[in-house]
Amino acid sequence: MSGIWGNNIRFSIFGESHGEAIGITIDGLESGIELDIEEINREMRRRAPGRNKMSTARNEKDEFEILSGYFNNRTTGTPLCAIIRNSDKRSKDYTKIKNIMRPSHADYTGNIRYSGFNDYRGGGHFSGRLTAPIVFAGAVAKQILRKKGIAIGSHIKSIGEIEEEYFDGVNIEKELLKELSYKEFAVINEEIGLKMKNEILKAKEEKDSLGGIVECAVLNLPTGIGSPFFNSVESVLSHLLFSIPAVKGVEFGAGFDISKMRGSKANDEICIEEGKVKTYTNNNGGILGGITNSMPIIFRAAFKPTPSIAKVQRTINIETKENTTIEIEGRHDPCIVQRAVPVVEAVTAMGILDLISQ
Amino acid sequence: MSGIWGNNIRFSIFGESHGEAIGITIDGLESGIELDIEEINREMRRRAPGRNKMSTARNEKDEFEILSGYFNNRTTGTPLCAIIRNSDKRSKDYTKIKNIMRPSHADYTGNIRYSGFNDYRGGGHFSGRLTAPIVFAGAVAKQILRKKGIAIGSHIKSIGEIEEEYFDGVNIEKELLKELSYKEFAVINEEIGLKMKNEILKAKEEKDSLGGIVECAVLNLPTGIGSPFFNSVESVLSHLLFSIPAVKGVEFGAGFDISKMRGSKANDEICIEEGKVKTYTNNNGGILGGITNSMPIIFRAAFKPTPSIAKVQRTINIETKENTTIEIEGRHDPCIVQRAVPVVEAVTAMGILDLISQ
Amino acid sequence: MSGIWGNNIRFSIFGESHGEAIGITIDGLESGIELDIEEINREMRRRAPGRNKMSTARNEKDEFEILSGYFNNRTTGTPLCAIIRNSDKRSKDYTKIKNIMRPSHADYTGNIRYSGFNDYRGGGHFSGRLTAPIVFAGAVAKQILRKKGIAIGSHIKSIGEIEEEYFDGVNIEKELLKELSYKEFAVINEEIGLKMKNEILKAKEEKDSLGGIVECAVLNLPTGIGSPFFNSVESVLSHLLFSIPAVKGVEFGAGFDISKMRGSKANDEICIEEGKVKTYTNNNGGILGGITNSMPIIFRAAFKPTPSIAKVQRTINIETKENTTIEIEGRHDPCIVQRAVPVVEAVTAMGILDLISQ
Amino acid sequence: MSGIWGNNIRFSIFGESHGEAIGITIDGLESGIELDIEEINREMRRRAPGRNKMSTARNEKDEFEILSGYFNNRTTGTPLCAIIRNSDKRSKDYTKIKNIMRPSHADYTGNIRYSGFNDYRGGGHFSGRLTAPIVFAGAVAKQILRKKGIAIGSHIKSIGEIEEEYFDGVNIEKELLKELSYKEFAVINEEIGLKMKNEILKAKEEKDSLGGIVECAVLNLPTGIGSPFFNSVESVLSHLLFSIPAVKGVEFGAGFDISKMRGSKANDEICIEEGKVKTYTNNNGGILGGITNSMPIIFRAAFKPTPSIAKVQRTINIETKENTTIEIEGRHDPCIVQRAVPVVEAVTAMGILDLISQ
Repeated sequence: MSGIWGNNIRFSIFGESHGEAIGITIDGLESGIELDIEEINREMRRRAPGRNKMSTARNEKDEFEILSGYFNNRTTGTPLCAIIRNSDKRSKDYTKIKNIMRPSHADYTGNIRYSGFNDYRGGGHFSGRLTAPIVFAGAVAKQILRKKGIAIGSHIKSIGEIEEEYFDGVNIEKELLKELSYKEFAVINEEIGLKMKNEILKAKEEKDSLGGIVECAVLNLPTGIGSPFFNSVESVLSHLLFSIPAVKGVEFGAGFDISKMRGSKANDEICIEEGKVKTYTNNNGGILGGITNSMPIIFRAAFKPTPSIAKVQRTINIETKENTTIEIEGRHDPCIVQRAVPVVEAVTAMGILDLISQ
Repeated sequence: MSGIWGNNIRFSIFGESHGEAIGITIDGLESGIELDIEEINREMRRRAPGRNKMSTARNEKDEFEILSGYFNNRTTGTPLCAIIRNSDKRSKDYTKIKNIMRPSHADYTGNIRYSGFNDYRGGGHFSGRLTAPIVFAGAVAKQILRKKGIAIGSHIKSIGEIEEEYFDGVNIEKELLKELSYKEFAVINEEIGLKMKNEILKAKEEKDSLGGIVECAVLNLPTGIGSPFFNSVESVLSHLLFSIPAVKGVEFGAGFDISKMRGSKANDEICIEEGKVKTYTNNNGGILGGITNSMPIIFRAAFKPTPSIAKVQRTINIETKENTTIEIEGRHDPCIVQRAVPVVEAVTAMGILDLISQ
Repeated sequence: MSGIWGNNIRFSIFGESHGEAIGITIDGLESGIELDIEEINREMRRRAPGRNKMSTARNEKDEFEILSGYFNNRTTGTPLCAIIRNSDKRSKDYTKIKNIMRPSHADYTGNIRYSGFNDYRGGGHFSGRLTAPIVFAGAVAKQILRKKGIAIGSHIKSIGEIEEEYFDGVNIEKELLKELSYKEFAVINEEIGLKMKNEILKAKEEKDSLGGIVECAVLNLPTGIGSPFFNSVESVLSHLLFSIPAVKGVEFGAGFDISKMRGSKANDEICIEEGKVKTYTNNNGGILGGITNSMPIIFRAAFKPTPSIAKVQRTINIETKENTTIEIEGRHDPCIVQRAVPVVEAVTAMGILDLISQ
Repeated sequence: MSGIWGNNIRFSIFGESHGEAIGITIDGLESGIELDIEEINREMRRRAPGRNKMSTARNEKDEFEILSGYFNNRTTGTPLCAIIRNSDKRSKDYTKIKNIMRPSHADYTGNIRYSGFNDYRGGGHFSGRLTAPIVFAGAVAKQILRKKGIAIGSHIKSIGEIEEEYFDGVNIEKELLKELSYKEFAVINEEIGLKMKNEILKAKEEKDSLGGIVECAVLNLPTGIGSPFFNSVESVLSHLLFSIPAVKGVEFGAGFDISKMRGSKANDEICIEEGKVKTYTNNNGGILGGITNSMPIIFRAAFKPTPSIAKVQRTINIETKENTTIEIEGRHDPCIVQRAVPVVEAVTAMGILDLISQ
């Protein structure tokens, strides 16, 4: 089993980068939900390639078609399936390097996993392109969550070694998250953002690539969501985040740094303010015992640098079983982090929707 | 749904710290597997409290009783249920602080989640004590994996700010993992281990607590295990790791640090050596596209400091809805990391067993 | 996977007839539900053996112990596990016929399924005794349903060829269901009941056994429960009913007979009476398109005769691979149907609770 | 949750009768399986309408398009999604009767279940048309099973009160099943088949409809497939069969009749013949303790008469909440049983494939 996730709302993904279409079926949605299609399109464009020099020139409009579960502009409550046709596929680019395993890609593992029968063109089912249906599903989920007052937003916490400030886990504003969602390059500090962009272009020029960290916040979740064993909010969100290609680390609240604190500093002391339960700090990222505690959920996902680089790399030919080298040509993102921002939000929205539907 | 996990092998946990018993049912095990009961007992003791001055004085022998699924010293293939009676429960310790929410514990979230009906004594279902049945299940899983040549081991990578060396992700030895499993305090470098222990005792003396990081390795997994969406090896393991109380971060391979590397450094170049596919480095922690790539799986889990500290802390009374303070008395671990080592290995064994049973 | 069922409420069963204990864990129950323990005991006694000459003389009190998920007489919302110790086990009775496969029992299929490692004593995990934890779970589910006004009841529709009247699918009374639940032999018509009992005793005397049909009704379900594909109310209930040992047929409403009707007769015409939607007939058994339609749910489950008979039967020795014969001695029910009545109700309650918890 | 089924192979259905497309995603298929597309088309035609006077004149070619999971004529091992566009939709036919609930259809239950937001046109998601993607999935499953020697076939056991012979549960031939699959009207006895057809045409003429029974056999299954609680072969197959619109009863082996037999007649005595374990009779339909026993699986599914009839029927207007009448016009099947034959086989193939993939 691979392509299905969810306990209450189930997301069933399918497709290959150079196949007929990619898509997703969402099962278990409430009926009667009006969807803002233009808003979904806006989310799709946040992820889509070709918006600037920092992303691949592959030209995919990512136009989705809803096939089912949607009638008179509202969800019917039956499975909602949407597909996106693959238009700009230059498949022959790939046949010549079919047997040359690209380092840090899923070429070799996919080949073994599927006994050589997987669609190798453009990464096939492993392609970052599969995040398009995820963004679609996330956009639907976000709209449902928004009607319940729940907001999700994120920013680029770092690109390579260039970092910007953390979200303020105690006082983060909904307005900030909204602003960030309208930015082409989602940073709080534009000056640092400029440095990040320059760093990306420099890496590109040097035939290299960069990674980074996305920080995400979820506001206004009801208290008491999630379960201790084995369905903590952290479990659910990390499960989904680690499905995004290139994610190698996930941390909540103070994350790895909390392991260096003493209890007296790490503990989030509690108070009641104007009838609302709060904590003075938010080192636990809004989750205790796997359950939401009324504070914002805060987490970070670490992305590795794009494995596709034009430099010479040592690798193997899977057919001849010989060592060889590769220089990856073609249209690739020197850094995927900026386009990953809406994907992080999308899986978060999917996870949160599933959790609150219990 | 909370207490059940797994696709192919299902683990169903139950129990409260001060209830009649805690336990776990394992569904889907192969029949005919001989279990080394003494070996399971050894694993239980690795987690059990009271072994030294660094852990709680609560005296629980953690003796398990297998109720089903086991006949003539072998698994029958039907659900295997084991329980552990709660013996040393001093429940009256807890009633007096019933309504005072301990900071960074699950007292408040559990109260909301279960509408005040949860068993609050000793953390109830949220208690670290629930990791005892997890260690039981992990010990069973480990024995099955060992018969397939798969080894799991881990060490204390850090306590507070004191760190020891990383596992060597390329050349890690099975023998080292075995040695570590026999140590009361699982470090590679005994000298640093001594510093860590002193740091823990110092924190205890100062009525404070410490956290740390556990690093874990899985050797000799078949290549091609796992799936891209939504069941990557990282997804499965992080899902389980984030179910362990106190874990706030999980990273694979180079983890968060990989986000700072350039692709040319981060990429694990590939080669064939004596007919075996390998990578020169292991920044991806043995997983590409969510699937095992023949290299050791390497990951780290960050634990927060024990929230139970004897210092005065600000908090609330959930009944009177008033601000108050708390000084947590009783028998608590100043650092949970040492006892968490076998728990990290246990959930890893559970996850890997589920993955290879596909 | 075998022992776990449910989407919203999960039931995890374990145990063997002659092992340490049998039991069940219920995961996902609401917190704060007060349970009437005496009422659960009454349900257990309905199923328990030894009540009269028509059932086995095996003396099991079926006393359950709740291990978890229950505190201060209420559910905590965490997994509720209950076990029943096996007391009256005469295991040596079974060793001598270990390799002789009893016809129409699961001896042979169990042996193959579990590669000979299953606990063969008294049917092991296949034993009708495993319906005791099911009755426990059903009794819990029933109490929750009753608080929502939902009633479940059933009667012995037939024993062998002796039949009594059908439930009136349009006007069935809650009071009738309650009365039936207090009868030791659950028939509407006592005169026919007496005939049935005599038929059972006659079969027993002739070293033979009988089957029969249980008819069950569910009243006051909310309209709109269930789903078309693949989770119809019929799917859910039949799934569970066919898990009860000895069930070979399940039908809803007019069942197999509806296949002989013309549409103009079979169709349940609709009307509004005093603001309530009703149908004039109930050939569909209260379910249309897999979803409840406001009428009572009516269904029947067919039980085969007890396979354990004292007559000589042809069979095989699984060890020697030779043909042989068997005369089954020991304490067996000449007819299981009377004791199956609360089991049918139990799985129905489990299924309905799961369905309405969506 | 509604549209997803399966433990090892997951089938995710979507679509409405008059929406853009209907389809299904199959997740978990082995990679490298070559599919005979023409064979799938043949199965689709067995179900398709318009083949003769006994079925609706709605002209749907049921041409499927595989969107993913299929490359170079083989499965890739990633989710295989196929869609069927809805071509011949005359949606305005339906708007005028939108609020008039058709008796014994899912109009009313669907309206309540989805709060009035379901696509009511042509039955929407409840339409028999949704069995087209099921037949697609079943055709794929059948091909995989055939490579393992497993054969599935069925015949029309009865139409109304006209019955033909039962399958011989002990000696049924693969060849017979194949022959039946090529018949437009799948009966063993052509003479009785003619009577059945005449009966259907007569009912049609009289503005009425008929139901019937489909009997199905599965040959050459490995022994030891299935599990006692809660995943018996009967549970799995009945779960799927009761998802087919119009099925109201399912029985295995002797089914309801076994409840009338004495044990000495019902029990299937066992023997070894030429090294193979067999039973002399097959009253248990090839399943004992929920597990296959080496004999053919035999079961029957009862279909109610098509609810769409041109006669005047009493019903309600859901908007005005008033009693009214309806005469259903349009293109309807006077009997669905003949077209249901490949659907019964399809869900059987889906269920068996899931079971043997454990």
